[in-house]
Amino acid sequence: MGSTGNGFAGDRAATISGGTVVDKDVDFANYFCTYGFLYHQKEMLCDRVRMDSYYNAVFDNKHHFDGKTVLDVGTGSGILAIWAGQAGARKVYAVEATKMSEHARELVKANNLQDVVEVIEGSIEDVTLPEKVDVIISEWMGYFLLRESMFDSVICARDRWLKPTGVMYPSNARMWLAPMRSRLADQKMSDHEGAMGDWFCFLDETKTNYGVDMSVLTKPFSEEQKKYYLQTSLWNNLHPNQVVGTAAIIKEIDCLTVTVNDILNVRASISSSISAEETRLCGFAGWFDVHFRGSKENPAQQEIELTTAPSEDYSTHWGQQVFLLHPPISVSKGDDLNINFSMDRSKQNHRLMEVELSCEIKQTSGKLLLPFRNKFYIE
Amino acid sequence: MGSTGNGFAGDRAATISGGTVVDKDVDFANYFCTYGFLYHQKEMLCDRVRMDSYYNAVFDNKHHFDGKTVLDVGTGSGILAIWAGQAGARKVYAVEATKMSEHARELVKANNLQDVVEVIEGSIEDVTLPEKVDVIISEWMGYFLLRESMFDSVICARDRWLKPTGVMYPSNARMWLAPMRSRLADQKMSDHEGAMGDWFCFLDETKTNYGVDMSVLTKPFSEEQKKYYLQTSLWNNLHPNQVVGTAAIIKEIDCLTVTVNDILNVRASISSSISAEETRLCGFAGWFDVHFRGSKENPAQQEIELTTAPSEDYSTHWGQQVFLLHPPISVSKGDDLNINFSMDRSKQNHRLMEVELSCEIKQTSGKLLLPFRNKFYIE
Repeated sequence: MGSTGNGFAGDRAATISGGTVVDKDVDFANYFCTYGFLYHQKEMLCDRVRMDSYYNAVFDNKHHFDGKTVLDVGTGSGILAIWAGQAGARKVYAVEATKMSEHARELVKANNLQDVVEVIEGSIEDVTLPEKVDVIISEWMGYFLLRESMFDSVICARDRWLKPTGVMYPSNARMWLAPMRSRLADQKMSDHEGAMGDWFCFLDETKTNYGVDMSVLTKPFSEEQKKYYLQTSLWNNLHPNQVVGTAAIIKEIDCLTVTVNDILNVRASISSSISAEETRLCGFAGWFDVHFRGSKENPAQQEIELTTAPSEDYSTHWGQQVFLLHPPISVSKGDDLNINFSMDRSKQNHRLMEVELSCEIKQTSGKLLLPFRNKFYIE
Repeated sequence: MGSTGNGFAGDRAATISGGTVVDKDVDFANYFCTYGFLYHQKEMLCDRVRMDSYYNAVFDNKHHFDGKTVLDVGTGSGILAIWAGQAGARKVYAVEATKMSEHARELVKANNLQDVVEVIEGSIEDVTLPEKVDVIISEWMGYFLLRESMFDSVICARDRWLKPTGVMYPSNARMWLAPMRSRLADQKMSDHEGAMGDWFCFLDETKTNYGVDMSVLTKPFSEEQKKYYLQTSLWNNLHPNQVVGTAAIIKEIDCLTVTVNDILNVRASISSSISAEETRLCGFAGWFDVHFRGSKENPAQQEIELTTAPSEDYSTHWGQQVFLLHPPISVSKGDDLNINFSMDRSKQNHRLMEVELSCEIKQTSGKLLLPFRNKFYIE
């Protein structure tokens, strides 16, 4: 919530993100501000899957930390930096852009690590460290991995501050896509119909009571509602039963070598085979996993996986991102899907995404259904 | 959601609001953007009390509009400008800061008023009109009247563009405060207790499972939760039965003469007498009314009132703003309340408010209860 208090309108600093100039105060108003709340930090700290995987990644691989230097990008409450310190790091630089850094500093002190962990308030793009580091650790993953585009900052940190022999925590990341079923499809279509029905009553009443014909707004209103109800991906925690076909990898990232350019766009052509007997293809689910493997030269002793795939036993605060089809399509076991997936950053906000998903269905009979192509927004 | 596309970080324009420099893009990200959605405009257009009062104010006072020039500040969908045109205005300038102006332009055309109503996209602080106007009409009221601080823009418009003989629509505005009762008080106290109880479990688990002592964050977390659950004013639609004492005016505004300085702060000392037999004082309700009276020299033929007071028959999208006490206080009919109310703009965001409310209760027995003073945030 960012009115500025100074009088120098011309001093507004900006960062460059994948070619787009981003106003820092606008970025704060749109994005960073939620991370300044302890309630939000707590939500992430209560995610057992997230916490367990990073905890185990660190403490099962102390050789990567003991006596080493570490950089925690976006330290938030300071938890990863503290673990790195507890695992024996010589020095940990914990960088945080929001005022949460003040709480991180308190937490470090309360856990007797003030001589090891140095909390620095600022953007990783701007801060200067006294030395390069052996490890960069960061929990940067947004919904469907790349939402929030925080990994840009981690790449920047790596290019500036990681020693040639250094390791990334996590070391790898993948995005997955699978066909799914969900009642949300019917629900959203129904909500949309309701909103449009309501609109036509409104047109009527406005003409009758107030003498103004608003029908020229029907088209833009309809587009706005369609985007909101039908084209915006949803957060959901799917049961594995809802995944109705084989999942496929649509993006693989080596955190040591990837560039910002590599992650500006996602382009994938994948195949999926329906595994459920007879069901409705209601859309697609997207999720991610990351791995802690160290590097080739300096591998982990214990490889750890953090996955956000639909699971009976586990759920994470990331859930999955759901892209719904309207209307759903009847499919049977053995039907083959050829899917083209593309994802780009929104021009208005580099931290949000636009998706195009086209799909061709070949039924077991051999019949080819008409392909469809849908646009989605990850907001 | 505003990343800027240009490369000139130094060109960021800013407006000055009551002494504070406001970054325009941040203001857009925080405030203006919601008004760019047709869904939001529709919500306001469906508010029958709002629509009826402005409609009647215009059409029952055609003498103010017929053959005259009009300025609509923040035209949104264009509704007020269209009515002014239909009431016979010679020319209407309809200014709108968001892309909603494009829809307003379409609406004007679809209602055959393109020769009368000129829609101008831009901030009223920046635009240049070809002439001064006879009437400024605007629906600028936020929750509890002044939230959003849009009236600053109307005052600016008036000082730049209203003829000395001109009239303001509305002409007057008042803020009201009254003691009230509501189950929300218990509910919020309960939610707060739940959040704090949950916190202590979290502290325990984090120490046990992850070896980190987070107790140093209890105080800031508690303050954050207290602010969120107990100190943030709530939107509510109160039934008149819930108003338990006499209401009093805490601010009066003459829209023709008021300055921005006059509305930066609200300071009032009021009295209220409990009217309910025996009840709990759960807090205070704030609302507003506006009147369409024209000016002394050029009065309305039909004075119209738009009130957002608690009502059995009517409700508006503004509801009332509720400031809750924790815990509620037992009061009886005839008890007298002396209330000091002060409201100032938030330093972080000039469109949001901070309130201090202190209250002394003199019971009918003559006994004086300890005064209390509470801080609230209108977010």
